[in-house]
Amino acid sequence: MRNSRRGAVDPFIVMDVMEAARQAEAGGRHIIHMEVGQPGTPAPAAARDALARAMQTDPLGYTVALGLPALRDRIARLYGDWYNVDLDPARVVVTPGSSGGFILAFSALFDAGDRVALGAPGYPSYRQILKALDLVPVEVQARAENRLQPTPEDLAGVDYDGLMVASPANPTGTMLDRDALGALVDAAQARGAAFLSDEIYHGIEYDRKTVSALEISDDVCVINSFSKYFSMTGWRAGWLVVPEGQVRQVERLAQNLFICPPHASQIAALAAMDATEELEANMAVYRKNRALMLEGLPKAGFDRIAPPDGAFYVYADVSHLTDDSRAFAQDILAEAGVAVTPGLDFDLDRGAGTLRFSYARATADIEEGLERLRAFMRKRGHLAQS
Amino acid sequence: MRNSRRGAVDPFIVMDVMEAARQAEAGGRHIIHMEVGQPGTPAPAAARDALARAMQTDPLGYTVALGLPALRDRIARLYGDWYNVDLDPARVVVTPGSSGGFILAFSALFDAGDRVALGAPGYPSYRQILKALDLVPVEVQARAENRLQPTPEDLAGVDYDGLMVASPANPTGTMLDRDALGALVDAAQARGAAFLSDEIYHGIEYDRKTVSALEISDDVCVINSFSKYFSMTGWRAGWLVVPEGQVRQVERLAQNLFICPPHASQIAALAAMDATEELEANMAVYRKNRALMLEGLPKAGFDRIAPPDGAFYVYADVSHLTDDSRAFAQDILAEAGVAVTPGLDFDLDRGAGTLRFSYARATADIEEGLERLRAFMRKRGHLAQS
Repeated sequence: MRNSRRGAVDPFIVMDVMEAARQAEAGGRHIIHMEVGQPGTPAPAAARDALARAMQTDPLGYTVALGLPALRDRIARLYGDWYNVDLDPARVVVTPGSSGGFILAFSALFDAGDRVALGAPGYPSYRQILKALDLVPVEVQARAENRLQPTPEDLAGVDYDGLMVASPANPTGTMLDRDALGALVDAAQARGAAFLSDEIYHGIEYDRKTVSALEISDDVCVINSFSKYFSMTGWRAGWLVVPEGQVRQVERLAQNLFICPPHASQIAALAAMDATEELEANMAVYRKNRALMLEGLPKAGFDRIAPPDGAFYVYADVSHLTDDSRAFAQDILAEAGVAVTPGLDFDLDRGAGTLRFSYARATADIEEGLERLRAFMRKRGHLAQS
Repeated sequence: MRNSRRGAVDPFIVMDVMEAARQAEAGGRHIIHMEVGQPGTPAPAAARDALARAMQTDPLGYTVALGLPALRDRIARLYGDWYNVDLDPARVVVTPGSSGGFILAFSALFDAGDRVALGAPGYPSYRQILKALDLVPVEVQARAENRLQPTPEDLAGVDYDGLMVASPANPTGTMLDRDALGALVDAAQARGAAFLSDEIYHGIEYDRKTVSALEISDDVCVINSFSKYFSMTGWRAGWLVVPEGQVRQVERLAQNLFICPPHASQIAALAAMDATEELEANMAVYRKNRALMLEGLPKAGFDRIAPPDGAFYVYADVSHLTDDSRAFAQDILAEAGVAVTPGLDFDLDRGAGTLRFSYARATADIEEGLERLRAFMRKRGHLAQS
């Protein structure tokens, strides 16, 4: 039996947390899920209705590789609505989730051995997908004073063929404003490197508007998805926007690597894009949860946090509390019944001193979770008796 | 703007045929589709009903990366039912179509530069996916006397790290019997190469039973899908069976590369597996269509064919009629209104002299298509006046 070297990627630590939480639940415990990076809500009702109807009349066979033309048109229109960008639908590629988008983008852009710069902390699968494709992830330590987003200064002296950023970012929820994003695009383009912008959390934004890399340049690759704002994680539908001259290359790869994105999910996604009322109701929950977290986490002793601009995470520095975030998260799960994610998934160097709290679930869960965290921290002696 | 070298894979020629057919239809013509490799039937009614129900009660978020446990169990049971093989469900990995299965299997097994032997003619995406992953496809010309399936003799002197076979094969529909398959497994294992068996057309079989590589060895990688027998192409759900010692590696890759297969499709697939009556009704159509093809193609002058053991294709040698199968297929589409696939997709060397006819669609279409093919060939002077 063979196992490749490139297949020896790291496991997601959050998956181990989820499994431990599942075992605790199987043993009868009630667990609050602050580890999971997905909405608790289903796809919008309009999306499910559209699919239920389509299943009665359409065999739902393969679509063309780039996705349903109506969906590509509708996605292009979103760029007008959200960013005032006039986007040619021909540049939109529907993908099997943003995961499929990464595979397509990386294989269309890079050859074996090419180096792709990433800010740390960041989404762990960037690194692992790159490794599985024989590419070299080059992690750049982002600084706290930049709210853990990379800057051109951080990249000075770094050798790279591509640069990938995420705004709002996972795990921090921090955003790059137009100037910061533009400076990174300029830095990459100045050295002939590809610029990739992961915009999967766009739409889930609070005090400031997200900026798309397409507002800055056409020569970028944007990755997005129906998973988060559109509440369709399990459907595996996302999209890329690529430069016009790259569409044929991506199309050929998509034909061969995926044939097409799931047809049923494309039907649902198209209807989801007009379910504004339901999606904004979800946003109201995130807004409320975020306020609860920003108030409750410091009261529970997790006071080294920055307010997230978007997404549904709070990333906490706990390096004064532990030098082993994995063990700390295990203790929180075992003693408080709250599942949280140790930072090691996101930052190999500094993650032993960080935790990610997700507030994507129901508000009642957030309230209960914060209560439990406070009791845990008091018992640990991390809170002054009050 | 960058384009990678490895992304410069060949287009599917069949996609060009489909596009030409679509344009003809947009211009008002009626086209018979003998080019498409997919059933015209939808997912079984039970599958669609199960999903419609699930959409009302389940948020359908991410599943675990290896797939729904109930689906993995049910797939394992199929190996008992179909092959009398006792399979541990832990070895079953649900994938986003067989396409996702190939990506997972190749990246779990092979490192950049590794060589994977394939019989030609064969499914073109094998080659292209390997290239996109920086692997080297090594095509072995299979011989007509072996019904275009490779043999250990064909592989003598060939250097390879993996061997992939397909039975029933696309485009020929021919199968490897137990001895032939066993000899290939032995040949690969004798040199420490991985053995991969594409069993996507299992279940669509006529006079003989298909043999799974799992009947021969546990140290193989089997790729299968819900697309063909289960009539669920657009749903992008398939599976792998891997050796026990490879499950963790595949799981980590799946977590990072795909997160999970489409949840909705997994729900539908689970119900499809018990929709025997509807699936066997589909099989009755294929059986009738196959008989029509085996009678009608020779009458239309396509007499250099072998009866397919499985799948829904007839592969015809037309080298006495043309040395440019692409132009020939274009003529058939333009003059007869029948879309067929030139062999160049499947065999770079000999495909200029072959055509693939699919009989996956409704019987009335097959009858009409054969009629049109006969008229076309008579007009061309390839049929004796009768």
